[in-house]
Amino acid sequence: MNFNTDLASEAVNTLKSKNKTYKEFANIKLIETIVDKNLSKEINKKEGDYYLVDISNEDINDSESLLRIEKFITKLLKKILRKEKINNSSKGLIVGLGNLNITPDSLGPKVIDKVIVTRHLFELDKDSISEGVSNVCALSPGVMGTTGIENIDIIKAIIDKISLDYIIVIDALKAFDINRVNKTIQITNSGISPGSGVGNRRKELSKDVLGIPVIAIGIPTVVDASSIAINSFYNVINNENYEDIFTKYNNLKPNQKQKIEEEVISNYNSNYIVSLKEIDIDIENLSEVISGAIDHALHF
Amino acid sequence: MNFNTDLASEAVNTLKSKNKTYKEFANIKLIETIVDKNLSKEINKKEGDYYLVDISNEDINDSESLLRIEKFITKLLKKILRKEKINNSSKGLIVGLGNLNITPDSLGPKVIDKVIVTRHLFELDKDSISEGVSNVCALSPGVMGTTGIENIDIIKAIIDKISLDYIIVIDALKAFDINRVNKTIQITNSGISPGSGVGNRRKELSKDVLGIPVIAIGIPTVVDASSIAINSFYNVINNENYEDIFTKYNNLKPNQKQKIEEEVISNYNSNYIVSLKEIDIDIENLSEVISGAIDHALHF
Amino acid sequence: MNFNTDLASEAVNTLKSKNKTYKEFANIKLIETIVDKNLSKEINKKEGDYYLVDISNEDINDSESLLRIEKFITKLLKKILRKEKINNSSKGLIVGLGNLNITPDSLGPKVIDKVIVTRHLFELDKDSISEGVSNVCALSPGVMGTTGIENIDIIKAIIDKISLDYIIVIDALKAFDINRVNKTIQITNSGISPGSGVGNRRKELSKDVLGIPVIAIGIPTVVDASSIAINSFYNVINNENYEDIFTKYNNLKPNQKQKIEEEVISNYNSNYIVSLKEIDIDIENLSEVISGAIDHALHF
Amino acid sequence: MNFNTDLASEAVNTLKSKNKTYKEFANIKLIETIVDKNLSKEINKKEGDYYLVDISNEDINDSESLLRIEKFITKLLKKILRKEKINNSSKGLIVGLGNLNITPDSLGPKVIDKVIVTRHLFELDKDSISEGVSNVCALSPGVMGTTGIENIDIIKAIIDKISLDYIIVIDALKAFDINRVNKTIQITNSGISPGSGVGNRRKELSKDVLGIPVIAIGIPTVVDASSIAINSFYNVINNENYEDIFTKYNNLKPNQKQKIEEEVISNYNSNYIVSLKEIDIDIENLSEVISGAIDHALHF
Repeated sequence: MNFNTDLASEAVNTLKSKNKTYKEFANIKLIETIVDKNLSKEINKKEGDYYLVDISNEDINDSESLLRIEKFITKLLKKILRKEKINNSSKGLIVGLGNLNITPDSLGPKVIDKVIVTRHLFELDKDSISEGVSNVCALSPGVMGTTGIENIDIIKAIIDKISLDYIIVIDALKAFDINRVNKTIQITNSGISPGSGVGNRRKELSKDVLGIPVIAIGIPTVVDASSIAINSFYNVINNENYEDIFTKYNNLKPNQKQKIEEEVISNYNSNYIVSLKEIDIDIENLSEVISGAIDHALHF
Repeated sequence: MNFNTDLASEAVNTLKSKNKTYKEFANIKLIETIVDKNLSKEINKKEGDYYLVDISNEDINDSESLLRIEKFITKLLKKILRKEKINNSSKGLIVGLGNLNITPDSLGPKVIDKVIVTRHLFELDKDSISEGVSNVCALSPGVMGTTGIENIDIIKAIIDKISLDYIIVIDALKAFDINRVNKTIQITNSGISPGSGVGNRRKELSKDVLGIPVIAIGIPTVVDASSIAINSFYNVINNENYEDIFTKYNNLKPNQKQKIEEEVISNYNSNYIVSLKEIDIDIENLSEVISGAIDHALHF
Repeated sequence: MNFNTDLASEAVNTLKSKNKTYKEFANIKLIETIVDKNLSKEINKKEGDYYLVDISNEDINDSESLLRIEKFITKLLKKILRKEKINNSSKGLIVGLGNLNITPDSLGPKVIDKVIVTRHLFELDKDSISEGVSNVCALSPGVMGTTGIENIDIIKAIIDKISLDYIIVIDALKAFDINRVNKTIQITNSGISPGSGVGNRRKELSKDVLGIPVIAIGIPTVVDASSIAINSFYNVINNENYEDIFTKYNNLKPNQKQKIEEEVISNYNSNYIVSLKEIDIDIENLSEVISGAIDHALHF
Repeated sequence: MNFNTDLASEAVNTLKSKNKTYKEFANIKLIETIVDKNLSKEINKKEGDYYLVDISNEDINDSESLLRIEKFITKLLKKILRKEKINNSSKGLIVGLGNLNITPDSLGPKVIDKVIVTRHLFELDKDSISEGVSNVCALSPGVMGTTGIENIDIIKAIIDKISLDYIIVIDALKAFDINRVNKTIQITNSGISPGSGVGNRRKELSKDVLGIPVIAIGIPTVVDASSIAINSFYNVINNENYEDIFTKYNNLKPNQKQKIEEEVISNYNSNYIVSLKEIDIDIENLSEVISGAIDHALHF
């Protein structure tokens, strides 16, 4: 079955894999998924540590909830940065992927609009910088349909030009389960893999390719319409109460099942996206949280 | 089966009703549906003439396509206005329903931003008005969650205050079939019925209630996620090729089927909406077309 | 001399009038101006109590500063409401004047987007309302160039339709002194007078006209280019150091001076406005403060 | 006297220089200014050919006017490109300077949002490209306060990474004369000099620095408040009718005059900008014209 998801945790779910640890902190749940070489092949996600922060029990329209989430993300981000040997004398670039003009794809650019940058002060006015403030710059490279340039080429060009020790990249993701949308934050040291997100972005942003650590922060803002179709189909087919009714289907061979699955999703290309009615306001609030957490994790 | 659609033509479809006429004009198709008393009860749509303009073969990112659509809508609108005995000495109010801050619900307010108004010139500078220009004003009443006032109360208040002969109301609609989204324009003399559209708007805007003709122009900009679920489920269940596999289901009693249908859509409340990735740009282009058509239909 | 200002305090200044009281609260200064019948004629401002809150020593990009201002305005607003015998069983309408699409004129509509409304809950779900919450609704009537209807007609229509005890109206104002721009909040029980603000709005919103108290909250977001011209001209002409150089001018008769003054401002019609580079961000922050203060003053 | 202007033509004006040619094409005027080595020092503008297109007799809210301007700019741009030996086998980068979130500074990024890019098609799908289409990409590098990186560093990085033959850079400019604002388009082969525009952008984008031709297209969207002050002061002081009144001033020594001039502008730092009330709509229309002209000049 073809799962259109950028969340390692969702991909692993289908395997009932043991590579996950659950923790709870008041309303916020944390799921850690270690994707090793073998698992990487199985679920088609890059090797690395994936942290899925489940905020579905928080209300992102409430300022106290937002503060709690921000603090949680700050702490988690600090831990990941430390693990990557990044400290406040390291020089970082924050990259916001996505298209500002397509609401569910605008998370990255919106974070860049809000995040604190200091690199120019280090260059031009070093004395004005307080202790604990680290050297950081930011960029929204745009999307290929608007710029004609691959993101990877722009990022590589910048890395070659200015001295950098690490990258934090923010992107809108795609989930399989609609209940994850705007209610999940994934942070990983594996970077961003090709074809991720709402838009069509290509080529991998990762330590392998760029030579420096790449921390990716992503929030699923959409699911494919085809995910709704297949999900609700199996919701019924696999329902114990209706086992008897769908026996024939369940006894089909995998390739026969697959043919029918393809029929289920046949009407929905990747242009049809499922999102929440309040997506504009959600993106505003979530970009505030992410930029705040980055600011607090980098400067102290 | 519960069809969440504001399109009379879709509702009628399920009845294989004969109340429809198809016409083709180059790339644009026109479907007329006359909803009489009986049909009104069956499909739960208000009585009236419904014109569904199918623009799925036009490209709304192409300026020549947009011009063709605008001309077509202008002509159709003129015909409907004539039928309602509205001419250029009639005084009109254009109402844009919806929420400017929720992209798929912003069609109405965006049309109001673009449409030409003349009422203030008739009041303050009558000599500046050319022959053929008619007296028209416009309003975006906002949504109840933001104003605390029902749209119907605001519109009624205005009608009581200023002299008006007719209303044109623009709203974003909900379709059942995803292929209709941003590719269909419905125009009707039956007004707008409660609960229509993306947001939750209440109470009917119609000639019955307001005492003057109400022409409604609507474009479906979303479908419910539950529509995707049920649609794709039946796409497979009713497929002749799999008839044999799903015999047991098809032999169930209606109330048993309904229980399973409810299971199919159980995960998707009305907060989950399906739309197109390019919704922001589409709404921009479509609001341009609608405002242009209204301008050309009213002033000549 | 023609002072283009909506601030009573500025108008009075030129008279070196005694009708003003200054108070200081930490960084925030309060200037009270009582405009009585006589003063009203002299300065061409409607009779009433004018409170000018000077926030020029606060930083409206700092969240703690914003909170301080919000608290101050809340307290002041409560005092004014009490004086007008408005309590939490009174029913209010909040009106945001101005044009959302012209940044310095968008303060009013932006406050309406943010302010809490409750009237629909009182109508539909009374049990859900906590004690202390008052009945309030809100409206952005738009500008005449976009709607073709005078604001006053829309407001009157609403008042005739729904039961209301008072109105709070928010508007962007024009100052004479550029240092007031985005650094001053004027609150008055005299309503809004014609021709105020950035755009051209007509006819008065006041208790005299509407029959219920009208509290106006305004922030100067622009000055006329002609104000800059005349202000800097007199800055030099009246400078003691250059008294000798400009003796001849200072000895001219008033009507001769006026002719030259007219020459000074002749190039600048009301279409040229002076504002701050950061106007977009300032309006965002100030609309947050105003809506927060209204919420806290009305519901407790 | 310190003229805050990015327009070579305005700077030259004050010298009553002969380096200018005037041409008229219906409603559009063209002023060519050749800035050679000597003039460059005098007016503090980089050497090069400056074309100032005066569109003050056109109405940029009228679609036919916009089309006329677009055609004129297309033709002029083609001429300049030819002169720089750029043809449709050359590879170009279009750079939009400025800040999308500050309206009068958003011209550059808005053009980038609208301009056609083709470079990715040349890389990925060469067969889809029609004859006459040239290879072009685009970038909005943001402003230093948001990115922490100098524009020049980002542009240089891109140039080093991908093969490019020329750059077209778009920027919002500052004029001295308010009548130029949104009514003038300056095109030059001299690139963009430091400190230009509304924001604070640093270091020069020019052929000298980047090694490839840099065509700059700029539109003044603001003037400094201090320009209004000094302009209106001299408007009166230098008026023949009042010669007698201001004799004493006119007989002052240059350094005495300068001291008074400094007094005139002393209240207005560069944060106070003068613009037009309709700036939001103007920028939308002008960015449409510029992107259209670039598209037509590059692909044919």
